[in-house]
Amino acid sequence: MEFHLWKQNSTGARLGEIRSPHGVVSTPVFMPVGTRGTVKGLTPEDLHSLGARIVLANTYHLWLRPGADLIQTVGGLHRFMHWDGPLLTDSGGYQVFSLAPTREISEEGVAFQSHLDGSRYFLTPERAIQIQEALGADIIMCLDECTPYPATREYVQASMERTVRWAHRCREAKTRKDQALFAIVQGGMSTELRHACLERLTEMDFPGYALGGLSVGEPREAMLEVAAACLPQLPVDKPRYVMGVGTPEDLVELVGLGADMFDCVLPTRNARNGMLFTSRGRIIIKNNQHRDEDMPIDELCTCYTCRHYSRAYLRHLFMAKEILAYRLNTIHNLWYFLELMRQMRRALAAGTFKEFRAHFYQLRQV
Amino acid sequence: MEFHLWKQNSTGARLGEIRSPHGVVSTPVFMPVGTRGTVKGLTPEDLHSLGARIVLANTYHLWLRPGADLIQTVGGLHRFMHWDGPLLTDSGGYQVFSLAPTREISEEGVAFQSHLDGSRYFLTPERAIQIQEALGADIIMCLDECTPYPATREYVQASMERTVRWAHRCREAKTRKDQALFAIVQGGMSTELRHACLERLTEMDFPGYALGGLSVGEPREAMLEVAAACLPQLPVDKPRYVMGVGTPEDLVELVGLGADMFDCVLPTRNARNGMLFTSRGRIIIKNNQHRDEDMPIDELCTCYTCRHYSRAYLRHLFMAKEILAYRLNTIHNLWYFLELMRQMRRALAAGTFKEFRAHFYQLRQV
Repeated sequence: MEFHLWKQNSTGARLGEIRSPHGVVSTPVFMPVGTRGTVKGLTPEDLHSLGARIVLANTYHLWLRPGADLIQTVGGLHRFMHWDGPLLTDSGGYQVFSLAPTREISEEGVAFQSHLDGSRYFLTPERAIQIQEALGADIIMCLDECTPYPATREYVQASMERTVRWAHRCREAKTRKDQALFAIVQGGMSTELRHACLERLTEMDFPGYALGGLSVGEPREAMLEVAAACLPQLPVDKPRYVMGVGTPEDLVELVGLGADMFDCVLPTRNARNGMLFTSRGRIIIKNNQHRDEDMPIDELCTCYTCRHYSRAYLRHLFMAKEILAYRLNTIHNLWYFLELMRQMRRALAAGTFKEFRAHFYQLRQV
Repeated sequence: MEFHLWKQNSTGARLGEIRSPHGVVSTPVFMPVGTRGTVKGLTPEDLHSLGARIVLANTYHLWLRPGADLIQTVGGLHRFMHWDGPLLTDSGGYQVFSLAPTREISEEGVAFQSHLDGSRYFLTPERAIQIQEALGADIIMCLDECTPYPATREYVQASMERTVRWAHRCREAKTRKDQALFAIVQGGMSTELRHACLERLTEMDFPGYALGGLSVGEPREAMLEVAAACLPQLPVDKPRYVMGVGTPEDLVELVGLGADMFDCVLPTRNARNGMLFTSRGRIIIKNNQHRDEDMPIDELCTCYTCRHYSRAYLRHLFMAKEILAYRLNTIHNLWYFLELMRQMRRALAAGTFKEFRAHFYQLRQV
């Protein structure tokens, strides 16, 4: 993997490019989440036509079902899910901490029960790498502990230090040369601990760095403060990935602060719950006011859904729990996020990011 | 609507063409079922690429939700569901008899409760036409009573005679000139009553005729016997539609007997249940044997799903209840049915239907 930084503006916002074995990705980029090897309801062709260039898949989910060995047997995750573009897998840590009914963390790793059938698993840094090598994504992630919020300073520090030691073990365990291993900065909401983590990880010279442990319940201001404190301290020539964030407003702010990569279930999950993003804010499609509206979700949107379907039809599909509702809503919401990133990249290229940001907020106030 | 009969072979099998306001349909044709104004999980573009040329929608479902007035307000069913090809709507009768929790039939019509919320409706022949005119399909159907099976001869006769009187009332109630109204032949499993019904309906000179009340629990032989007795008696210059049938084997037999049109939920419903049609028979995708099969559903199939996905992946999606499972399975099963119809039309054009039929059964025995 190579990273090229084309431009960086005075606020730190960056325009760049990731070159991976499966293709080139312009940054800043939003990665749709394909939890179990599918972005729910969409084919890879749908994703291509939305302009998605890199997809995230969850190691935890794929490890438990259908199993990493099985995926390796049938040719790896790219072939399995028929996605020939770049892929990123997480380490599985986040889901162990958020989904597993029981878990016990030690220096060696984390013992947990599957949320599917209660069976026992043990995830170590070495195992996380082994599984991600079997899956074969272009970018893989170090096993970390996603520090809960709130937590005592002692806990955050101990957890952060273990994350650093685990990052080292991940790097040692890695055998494949065609995958890029990113490290994850933890340290809770403490700028001091974040900086300490960041310093020790950058010494190990990873090809990319992520901020983890954000959007875990803290106030938005705390998240932005941590990002503002950390992003400028990360190596300028490596991609910077803010994990699990966020709203359209978060993306605009974080791009402004110099973030290059994002993933979030917000557009896809909310689509399935009938919450749709528009240039003027959000709409809830089941609301009665949309019952006979012969207009698209967003009159400024050019996505497939907005070009062909009325709010009245989308509300009908949603009320009837029709599968097509989830698909058409997902297409719209993902387009909204991916189009937002395209607009930001264009603005960065043109040197007009400040104006873009002002216009973005202005539309919401009308 | 015009119907052109291009060819009829010695067994009665026919090759023809329906010209409707929204396009030309080669017959024999299979119509995917778009119950609530959507073929579950597919976009109209998906349907076009599968080669579907006409879609059926259910008056009962659309009347109850979102309502025929609403659909008319936003421009009719074609525009509502973004399908610009031919559409056929049924009369609502079948669903009243199969879905409504209570119903009371009289000469005037049928009073019933909605299966959605128990509210009361009254469906008459005139109302069935009014609703179908609001929806705006190219082909609409007379209100009939789908005679239950088994039933006494007295019941079947009385029901059949009411169906004939209702057909007359439907014809009288019709006001739109751009829709073709088809009559439905009832009469249970009695050839005599079927012939009596058929004679009286053909006197009224409808632009098309359907056989209703089949596939309602009777033995397959009884269904084929009724079809064999009725199809040759229907006007040669009008399309012949066998409603709600059937399996691939049924389609092959009924085309052989001279049927032109079919609809059935079998390919779409079974797809969602994980039962997939192949040229060698059926497979149940959740079966453990498919767990790590790196091969398509059907090696002879050229559908999108078979070109790009393994049984292992499809099983994974199905076990995880992923939305994409329903879509990929539906694409495959519908392709199987539509491709079967294409093969039959080609064989009819080439005068090789007999050979086609022999080959069809031969593959299943290997």
